[in-house]
Amino acid sequence: MPNIKLKTIDSRAPKKLNKEHVKKETQKLKFKLEELQNLLYAESKHALLIVLQGMDASGKDGVAKNVFDAVNPMGCRVIPFKKPTELEMKHDFLWRIHQQVPEKGMINIFNRSHYEDVLIQRVHKWVDEKTIKQRFAHINNFEKLLSETGTVVLKFYLHVSKEEQLIRLQERLSDKTKMWKHNEEDLKEREFWNDYMKAYEDVFDNCCTGADWNIIPADQNWYKEYLIAKKVVETLESLKMKFPGLKV
Amino acid sequence: MPNIKLKTIDSRAPKKLNKEHVKKETQKLKFKLEELQNLLYAESKHALLIVLQGMDASGKDGVAKNVFDAVNPMGCRVIPFKKPTELEMKHDFLWRIHQQVPEKGMINIFNRSHYEDVLIQRVHKWVDEKTIKQRFAHINNFEKLLSETGTVVLKFYLHVSKEEQLIRLQERLSDKTKMWKHNEEDLKEREFWNDYMKAYEDVFDNCCTGADWNIIPADQNWYKEYLIAKKVVETLESLKMKFPGLKV
Repeated sequence: MPNIKLKTIDSRAPKKLNKEHVKKETQKLKFKLEELQNLLYAESKHALLIVLQGMDASGKDGVAKNVFDAVNPMGCRVIPFKKPTELEMKHDFLWRIHQQVPEKGMINIFNRSHYEDVLIQRVHKWVDEKTIKQRFAHINNFEKLLSETGTVVLKFYLHVSKEEQLIRLQERLSDKTKMWKHNEEDLKEREFWNDYMKAYEDVFDNCCTGADWNIIPADQNWYKEYLIAKKVVETLESLKMKFPGLKV
Repeated sequence: MPNIKLKTIDSRAPKKLNKEHVKKETQKLKFKLEELQNLLYAESKHALLIVLQGMDASGKDGVAKNVFDAVNPMGCRVIPFKKPTELEMKHDFLWRIHQQVPEKGMINIFNRSHYEDVLIQRVHKWVDEKTIKQRFAHINNFEKLLSETGTVVLKFYLHVSKEEQLIRLQERLSDKTKMWKHNEEDLKEREFWNDYMKAYEDVFDNCCTGADWNIIPADQNWYKEYLIAKKVVETLESLKMKFPGLKV
């Protein structure tokens, strides 16, 4: 996916779209997703890894909550990747990631991922550019390993505008139910917005061997949820899964 | 390492070698190894992964016991890889392996490894040849990831002759201290000897990107232990490690 310019991509739904209609479609997709997850689990031939990336407040948590809430939690795990622990730092950057990939039959959702190692670390220059290039290759090899051994990797970039992000971060200062999400650092991190956009564009350019990126307009949650549910359902349908017969 | 023919490689020490002298040298090397391991642990900039492969009764267990026995066990772990568990089988073949790689400062010894997935599985045709080729590439990528992120990978093939193997397997039937190692399958597996040799030669040919293979004549334990101790010491010395100064 070369030469993606995030500035040229709308972070909102097309104006002509009817919100209520789209929401109904999302509901239908969620029912389908529930069925497909059950089939994935029963057949246990494939696994699905969903990678969620995006700026702070782009709505990553909301995807797990509002797209996968109908799915049996027995077959679906959300794994948030935060600042690496001391032990994780003493291993290669994919060590903690590889441990959390889904087993056959499972859907695992990465809330942030190995991509942080070529995003925040690059923007803040914690690692040099040579290391970043090496990591791109390691990420591609890693995702190829997963793809070739039965794991479908679906990568979503939640594309939120800088303006919408500010609104959401400010909500966290005033809304009692959101205050727990407030982090002073997030506001400071906005200074690096352009660097992040450049780093993301470079990721789209370099890391699409194993699986393509899906860039999801994310200023409106209803549209974001619809697009992700649609992509996940289509992907699972393409696997042409079947219930296994009786074991005798 | 192309075109290695194991048949042409002696599995015994050169005749002129003096066993007692070599044993003394091994002792000296083991003292050095003890010091170097302490330095590796203190500096914590590198990790050392030792991969031991070889036919049944080629002396893999003995390497851990007789080469690394002077080393502080705090900094050295032996990980035997046996038949994969049900959960491990539901992941890619490197999943269980990656979890066990050493953290910075550590020596981890793999008693068998990811190479079983291109050896026993190939010999018994549990996987097709296309999968084997893919695995070669995945193994190379994986070892490259380790090398580029600070882990030295040292791979040893313990080269035992078919005749010496039979002697050792028979000892397990008569020696009370060795009976616990007896496994009827090992004797049956001898029928596949030539297939194993071919599979190993193909591994040496295909999997030497991240790290070269060391082929160790292993019919005599004293010679095998000497060669491995020497290689490990030389490798650790080449890292030019230093004790870190006071943290203030």
